[in-house]
Formats: sequence, C-alpha cells, structure tokens
Amino acid sequence: MEEEQLRALLCDLDALKQRPDDPASIDRMRERVVAMMNPAAGAASRSKIKDMSAEVVDSNPYSRLMALQRMGVVENYERIRDYSAAIVGIGGVGSVAAEMLTRCGIGRLLLYDYDTVELANMNRLFFRPEQVGMTKTDAAVQTLSGINPDVVLESYSLNITTVKGFETFLASLKARSSHGRSTGVDLVLSCVDNYEARMVVNQACNELGQTWMESGVSEDAVSGHIQLLVPGETACFACAPPLVVASGVDERTLKREGVCAASLPTTMGVVAGLLVQNALKYLLNFGQVSPYLGYNSLKDYFPTMEMRPNPQCSNPACVQRQREYMESKPARDAAAKAKMEAEASTANECPVHLDNEWNISIVDDEDTPTSSIRGTSDILPEGLVRELPAADSYAEPAAPVSSSAIDDDLEELQRQLDALNSS
Amino acid sequence: MEEEQLRALLCDLDALKQRPDDPASIDRMRERVVAMMNPAAGAASRSKIKDMSAEVVDSNPYSRLMALQRMGVVENYERIRDYSAAIVGIGGVGSVAAEMLTRCGIGRLLLYDYDTVELANMNRLFFRPEQVGMTKTDAAVQTLSGINPDVVLESYSLNITTVKGFETFLASLKARSSHGRSTGVDLVLSCVDNYEARMVVNQACNELGQTWMESGVSEDAVSGHIQLLVPGETACFACAPPLVVASGVDERTLKREGVCAASLPTTMGVVAGLLVQNALKYLLNFGQVSPYLGYNSLKDYFPTMEMRPNPQCSNPACVQRQREYMESKPARDAAAKAKMEAEASTANECPVHLDNEWNISIVDDEDTPTSSIRGTSDILPEGLVRELPAADSYAEPAAPVSSSAIDDDLEELQRQLDALNSS
Repeated sequence: MEEEQLRALLCDLDALKQRPDDPASIDRMRERVVAMMNPAAGAASRSKIKDMSAEVVDSNPYSRLMALQRMGVVENYERIRDYSAAIVGIGGVGSVAAEMLTRCGIGRLLLYDYDTVELANMNRLFFRPEQVGMTKTDAAVQTLSGINPDVVLESYSLNITTVKGFETFLASLKARSSHGRSTGVDLVLSCVDNYEARMVVNQACNELGQTWMESGVSEDAVSGHIQLLVPGETACFACAPPLVVASGVDERTLKREGVCAASLPTTMGVVAGLLVQNALKYLLNFGQVSPYLGYNSLKDYFPTMEMRPNPQCSNPACVQRQREYMESKPARDAAAKAKMEAEASTANECPVHLDNEWNISIVDDEDTPTSSIRGTSDILPEGLVRELPAADSYAEPAAPVSSSAIDDDLEELQRQLDALNSS
Repeated sequence: MEEEQLRALLCDLDALKQRPDDPASIDRMRERVVAMMNPAAGAASRSKIKDMSAEVVDSNPYSRLMALQRMGVVENYERIRDYSAAIVGIGGVGSVAAEMLTRCGIGRLLLYDYDTVELANMNRLFFRPEQVGMTKTDAAVQTLSGINPDVVLESYSLNITTVKGFETFLASLKARSSHGRSTGVDLVLSCVDNYEARMVVNQACNELGQTWMESGVSEDAVSGHIQLLVPGETACFACAPPLVVASGVDERTLKREGVCAASLPTTMGVVAGLLVQNALKYLLNFGQVSPYLGYNSLKDYFPTMEMRPNPQCSNPACVQRQREYMESKPARDAAAKAKMEAEASTANECPVHLDNEWNISIVDDEDTPTSSIRGTSDILPEGLVRELPAADSYAEPAAPVSSSAIDDDLEELQRQLDALNSS
C-alpha cells in the first residue's frame, strides 16, 4: 500500500518536472504524503490464499507451480500444503532452502538456529544488512512471512547441541504427530556447518525414525554435497564418520583464532537448490530422489553414490532402526508388489505428458548410476562390490564375531573413508 | 526515520507551491522518495567500504570472500572490483545471478529487462510481493543497493528486441570501453526466457566480440543449462539453432492463450548458481570454466560438452570473428608458450594450499570430460569425432562447396540437434 503510494509519488514528481506549473499535482502529492503518515495505511503485501489455483493470471503466486501438474511433472502439487519440514541451521544453505520451500508454498516450516545475523554473512544470499543483530530465525521469519503469508512458520532460536536445546528440538519435531506418524514433520533438512550438530540431528532422527537430508559445503567454499538418510534403510551419519573424527581429533582444535572458512553465494545457492529439489522430489513423488549427490565446482563434477547402513554402527538407535527395517521387509515387499500390479493395470491409459508435440522423450543415461531410494533393488550396478552385508542377509542372526574380525572391518572401513576423502 | 522523511517531503512540497519553477527541489524530493522505498537505505544497512579487507570480524562483509585467497582458491579476489558484468533478463535466473554478483562485490552491474514484477513471479527467489508493479530493474536496484552499496548499479528498463532498445543496449555495453577493450563490460550474462532475445544478445556480442554466457531453464521447470560463448572461438547461438527454430516454426505460435510455463525456485537457483560460479571462475581465473553444463533435475544428471563454431554460420559477425580468431592464432600460441615457460620457472616455489594438514589432493576424474576453454587443445576426448573443421584447418581457404554438400551438412546438423534435444 505504502509502496504503491511512493511509486505514485515518483510518477507525480516526474510529471511535474515536465510541466512545472501544476499546483493541482502538488496538492495531490501532499495528500499522498499525509495518507502515508497515517499508520493505519501500512502493512499488506498480499493477503492469504485459501486454495492453490492453477489460473494463469499475473496476480496468482501459484500459477507457475500448479503448471507442474498440467505438464505432467507432479501428479498433485497442491499436496505440498499438507507437508511440514524442519530446517536446522539457517545459514548460507538453510536460509535459501527455507526461502525456496516458502515460495513453493509448503504447509509448515520449522526453523532452528542459535546465531545472530552479522555483516560477515552478507556474502551469501538471503539476509540483509538491516537485519544485523537479529537472531537468524527471527530475521528469517520476518522475510519469509512477507514473501508468503500462507506458510506457517515456527522459529526456534536455540542450540540443539545443548541438553535443553536438544529436548526442545525433539519435542518440537514430535508435536502434531498423529496416527501412523512418529513425528509431526515429513522431512528434516540439516544445513548446519559442523560435525557436532550433524551428530545431534542424526541422533534425533534415529531416535524418531525420521527421514532427513543432510547438506554441507567445504571450508574452501568450492564443493558441497547433499545426502538422504532414512533410519534403518540407508547409512546414518554415524555409520561412516568422516576422517577427521575417525582419526580421533577433536574438531574444535582445528579451528584457530582469527581464521575463518571461505564461503560463496554460488556454491551455497547450488547446494540449497539441489537439497530442496531432492526434498520436493521426495515429498511430491516425482523424478529420482538422489541418495547422495556431490558438487565439485572447480570441475563441475557431480559424483553420486549410495550408502548402506553399517550393522556395527556405534549409534544404538540406528542399529534398532536397521532391525525394524529388516523385520518389516515382507510387508514392504507385498505392498510394493500390489502397487506395481495396480499401476500395470492402469498403464497406457493416459500419457505422462499430455501435449508432447515434439515427441521429446527422456533417454536413460547408462553412464550415470543414480538410483532412487524408493523401489531400489538389491542388484548392484556393474563394477560395485558389496562390502557390507546386503539388507536381505542381515535378518539372519549374526554369528558371534571375534575381536580380530571387528578390527578387520574397521580397517576396511578406514580404507573406504580414505578413498572417499581423497576423491 | 521515515516519519522525518515524510515531514521533510511536506516542507518541500509547500516550498514548491510558493516557487513552482524549481527543478532542483523536484530532484531532491525524488531522492527522498526512493530512499523511503528502500528500507535498507535507512538507518541500519551499512556504509560503503573503500578497500576489501580480509580481517576476520563479524562486521566485515568481505571476510569470507577474501578467505578464498588465504585458502589458495583465488589468487587475487579483490580484483573483482575492477570487473563489470551485464545481466540481460532479470527474471528467475537473472535476479538471483545479480544478487550473487552483488554479494560477491563485483565492481559494476548493468541490468536489462522491460517487464514489471507480478505476484506470479513469487514462486522464484528474489522479488517480494510489495514490489509488484515496479519494473524488474528498479525493484532489483532497490534490493541490491541495500544489500551492497559498494556495487555500481545501472538499470535499463527496455526491450532489447526493439530497434531503439537494441541501440541503447549496444551503446551501454560500449560505454567506458577503453584501450584494448571493445566494450566496457567483462562479461554479459544472458538470462532471458525466449529464443528471440537470445538471438539479439548473440548478435550484439558477435558484433562487439564480447564474451558472454547463456543460461536457460526448460518450460517444464525440471532442467536447465549454462553455456560459454566466445565469439569466433566457440559456437555462437546461431551456429547451432535449437530444433524449434530449425524446423521453421515461429516460437510465438507455440504460446497459447491462458497457458503458462512451469517454474521452480530450485531449478532456477541451481542454474543461477552454476552460471555465476562459471562467471567467477572466468573473471577471477580459478578452476575450469565449463563450456557447457546441463542440469537434469529428475535424475540429477549434469551433461557437459564443447561446441566449435560453424564456418557456415548464418550470422556474418560470427563468421568475421571466426576469421579474426584464426588470424590471431600465431600470436596467441606465442603468448601461451611464454606464459607456460614463466609459470614453469616459478613452479614449486609456493604450494597451492598453505595449510594442507590432511594432505587432501584433488584427483582427476577421467570419466568426466570437462575441459577448460582457456588453454584448450585440439585433441578431442576419446569417443568424439570432429564433425566440423578443426579450428586449425579453417585458416586454409575453403574449397567451393556444391549445393548438395551444404544440404548434407544441414542434415547432419539436424541429426545432431535431434540427438541433443532428445537427451
């Protein structure tokens, strides 16, 4: 409203410059200024919208998203309003991820961070200099609520690595859990910048059986990754710890006084985009959800891989989730079979793309072994050897292992970690 | 603050009514109004910074960027202040690209768009609902000047596909050109959403010998690409036109009433990030500049390729630039040789990473044929066959070609286009 008034004022001033002798226009401007001085005239960017519409008009903020449905990419886009996501760490990646999900019209967004906005954050997207000193969660809610008032925003300014913070974190995830759901959120996105916080998110999600996605950017700002973690089904964050911890070095001793990591808005923007894209594919059930995707910006190289859970994982909750996953295999197989049969009977009834005038089809690229977590088979791609027991063989009671066998496993794991870290 | 501004505005208006012929007072009022429209320009934001500092304090907006230098990624980050970039199309990709370059502290940014902000744009990053109705360039300047007042912003609200718009576009690129430079900008980023505008950018850059980067996102919102175009050295946009035009169909007939393309903040954010990352690598001379990088989000697949110029290109300026490129080859070779020798003599004097405690090294990935445009050799990667004459063989006068030979070339080109479009 005020914005409009100011714009009108600019037009009036421009007109006045062309025709200086127009006292009536000066009166009109005066009225505008007085109206703006009345505080009642403030606020109002856009009002809430009850139902997402696919109508193609300039005033519809959802038209370009609902078009995904018309174009056959997403079966039911509007379902995004039923989903809740939690974002832990509202920094260079988390803030952009939050903005993307907000603009996509997600139902509810839970934001966690203990930090405040600093000028030193201005080399990444999202925060603005006038927000310096605000908590990152408050500043995020301020910006996001203005962008899309339809999204329910919950701000948690706390440190999840403290005892109290962890309790609040767990409680907030569990709130609104209903029949058949252990938590009230559909996905947790970890956008933190340190190992300790990642292990805490890992612990919470293992305890709750909560699917989550991890993201990270290297200290030299030129590479990053995203990863999907499904407790019991994929490796958890403790199943294959990074080298720095495997060697027993405390992370805090690595941080020296007066030394800061580099960061770039580009790398963080790309990682946030890949992360939220993967989240949308997971929530709205389209495309292939990537189990792991790396980004090496110096070479524009994007490695992918899949990581099985480690039956000897040090996290008891992970081992418990692995056991449950194995026990539920027969039910899962039956459900998958029923779904496939149902789909087969309705196949060929409607084409995926209604208007594919150019007969464009998506060709499989056999050089790129990206595979979906959903409906993944146990057949490994060519050239891969299973180093850990396959999911199927785990259900059988494990034979007691000798101490030297465990040592062998650890050495093998260390070798794999070394290989991963040097690539 | 705003209250004060409004009262001052009232005084100005009263004074103007007494003395109507005072253009200076109108300019002063205009400034006041623009300041009020930009909340960041108020008390908080930040003042200009004369020199980029590497000091690690919360109040330094450049500390994380200057760290790139300390970590050995970029040799001289501060040089970014000497560079100018033009961004054509301030939509879902262009606006985010502009924000990234602004936060990186680029010297000067020229912004071109003829459109206004609509609520229908809110499903992509950057613009806010209260900017609806403003021109995209004005809204961008409003936001960007608040984020980083050190960047010189030039806003051009015009349509480059009109005769007058094209003239202004060319003139603005040429302004500030100095000795040894045909234009005043170091790079043009094309972020437009249609074929016609891309051909206009292509024409301007071919005429000026201006290096540029093209970007695009598919109408179904789930894939995109970026491409580097160096007139005379790489394929120009007319060297290999997309299928829709090669088939002779007018693009405008494809747009139907009431139908809009889909778009996602994720895909556009990723494409903007890849584009500006490539621009930073090009300007600041680090990593490998990608000649072409695709992004298929459904499979998280990122194809790369290189495209040579077409000696039979329909664009005369392109053919002229190709000729000049061939003629300057001996000088270029000599310069490259001298540079290599100079580098060899200083090699091993200082390590790239000063503190590489973990002995992390970057391993070449032979499966990923990304190669730099700079210092590219004429040896093709395994599995590729040269369909067009190599750069070296072009200097020799071409034998007259018969009409059927040209037809064969076109058919071959069409086959290649078909293959590209179906992948």
